[in-house]
Amino acid sequence: MATIKDIADRLGIAVSTVSKGLNNASDISDETRQMVLDTAIELGYTPKRKKTLINNTAERKVCVFIENMDYENRDAFGYDLIQGFRQSASMRNWQTDIIPSNLNAQSTSQYDKFLLTNRYCGAFLIGFSMHNDYSVQISKTRFPTVLFDNHIQSNPKAGYVGTDCYEGLKLAVTHLFELGHQKIAFLNGAKNSMVSYERTQAFEAVMKELNLKIYPALFEYGYYVPDCAKYHVPKFIDNGATAIICASDLIASGAISEVTKRGLRVPEDISIIGFDDLPFCANLTPPLTTIRQDRQNLGRSAFTLLDCLINHIPVSKFLLRPKLIIRESTCRRQN
Amino acid sequence: MATIKDIADRLGIAVSTVSKGLNNASDISDETRQMVLDTAIELGYTPKRKKTLINNTAERKVCVFIENMDYENRDAFGYDLIQGFRQSASMRNWQTDIIPSNLNAQSTSQYDKFLLTNRYCGAFLIGFSMHNDYSVQISKTRFPTVLFDNHIQSNPKAGYVGTDCYEGLKLAVTHLFELGHQKIAFLNGAKNSMVSYERTQAFEAVMKELNLKIYPALFEYGYYVPDCAKYHVPKFIDNGATAIICASDLIASGAISEVTKRGLRVPEDISIIGFDDLPFCANLTPPLTTIRQDRQNLGRSAFTLLDCLINHIPVSKFLLRPKLIIRESTCRRQN
Repeated sequence: MATIKDIADRLGIAVSTVSKGLNNASDISDETRQMVLDTAIELGYTPKRKKTLINNTAERKVCVFIENMDYENRDAFGYDLIQGFRQSASMRNWQTDIIPSNLNAQSTSQYDKFLLTNRYCGAFLIGFSMHNDYSVQISKTRFPTVLFDNHIQSNPKAGYVGTDCYEGLKLAVTHLFELGHQKIAFLNGAKNSMVSYERTQAFEAVMKELNLKIYPALFEYGYYVPDCAKYHVPKFIDNGATAIICASDLIASGAISEVTKRGLRVPEDISIIGFDDLPFCANLTPPLTTIRQDRQNLGRSAFTLLDCLINHIPVSKFLLRPKLIIRESTCRRQN
Repeated sequence: MATIKDIADRLGIAVSTVSKGLNNASDISDETRQMVLDTAIELGYTPKRKKTLINNTAERKVCVFIENMDYENRDAFGYDLIQGFRQSASMRNWQTDIIPSNLNAQSTSQYDKFLLTNRYCGAFLIGFSMHNDYSVQISKTRFPTVLFDNHIQSNPKAGYVGTDCYEGLKLAVTHLFELGHQKIAFLNGAKNSMVSYERTQAFEAVMKELNLKIYPALFEYGYYVPDCAKYHVPKFIDNGATAIICASDLIASGAISEVTKRGLRVPEDISIIGFDDLPFCANLTPPLTTIRQDRQNLGRSAFTLLDCLINHIPVSKFLLRPKLIIRESTCRRQN
């Protein structure tokens, strides 16, 4: 791995100047600092963690980038995720900074440089979609990076933490199957998202295992907002669906109102299952049956995984098991 | 979760007698002890770990069951696996006992009872095939259990640690593809093994991604010994294979001798890739190109995963990235 001396040699300047550049010292020109940082990134330099006392957090800093996701109120998906991460990190004497990435548009376009100049040993990324600028950078990053619900191929510095998609769909479909449902619709999340793709694969696999017919008219990609239900639920109903699996609780809440609007009842006419088990699920009418993602433990696991990557253990995937939470939005098929 | 009192109530005996039964006290009858243990298992009782000083290992005991696999010499696959597990465990002040399961045939038929009576908080299982008695028990166990290269559905107490099969086959096939090979044979491991199944899926997926034709005559299941090569390699050669991927280094070593026996050269006539990167690979003639499984880190990760399960984090899968080690058994296609 590149050292400070390599950078100095490449630029033909003193090692002391390089370290000033890396440490944002004020007594060198911005131009030199820029040059040092660019070369550091180019050569793949990453700061070595000093062997410090366990309770000296000076060199033990990681950050969480969060995008397109609320995390400040308890009901938000990101809230427990970050709580869990923070807990595990502080138990191991690591400091965690939270960085809503929209406030860092410019830094996000230079991922490695941002981590380097801010002396972060690694990062946890939440809510980024595969097609944005990040995935390109993450596929090449030399900094330990954990992605929630995203998988980057081949880069041993990037690991994926999430919930086992196959088990999630297996729980949902099997629950409905045991209630006598045959025409099961699936309103998936955003297209072009890795987790949506994996859930589609899982849905098809489980339906086949149970010898249930998959109807193209009973499958759609949506988006993670209640509103998206109104574009697809009517079609599902018209095509005879007696149950709908939704890729998130928010979508499910939209599906419930859509079904009700059409003068049908949940669950008597249409059973509905959500995904996530956010706090509001229990207060919906009817209370929502859903596939629980253990967000607190996902956050804890994200740090465990990051800690592995920081210690050069090339983790590819770290998946937790989901749990079926049965409430009142599903029942035995009536007709 | 069931308590000692539940067991006492169910049997209508004193709590003190139950705890004598669970602790192998000598002043109760074998019959009573048996009864206590059977009821403990039936009710799903698991001993609670006392909150003890971090360096008090009295209640911090786990075990490694190993079957069909050598682990005593440095060249063996199990050796580093167990070293890594032991290291991580002792760093966290856990004691590890190694249990070659053939010496415990009777205990293996009563998995939970064995762990309970020996006061183990959990176990790491290496080398067990899915179709043997174990998988039935593991699917129901209430004890934290980590399986190497095996996945049990739905039981939140059983986690799977291994190497990402898709990435392994992707590295192997892509390497051969870039060397101009088109007719690539795959000599897989034992049929009915989960990892063999996943590798088959991965092989087919990657071949498709690279628009390479899959020839039924160039795919076979074998077994993890050099000898199995002689049953399949001749057929691969007769059907025009210019490269062979083997599911283990041992199989690959057998493939090399088979090719040589037929008067052909490795790699000029046939390129060969192994799997695992065991120490002997570098000393083969020619030195073997292989897909490295990081056994030490797999062992460490196995303990990390077991620690998660012990702390009620329901990990389903924990996969590490493999690495392509290029030596001299592969080269550009000659004809």
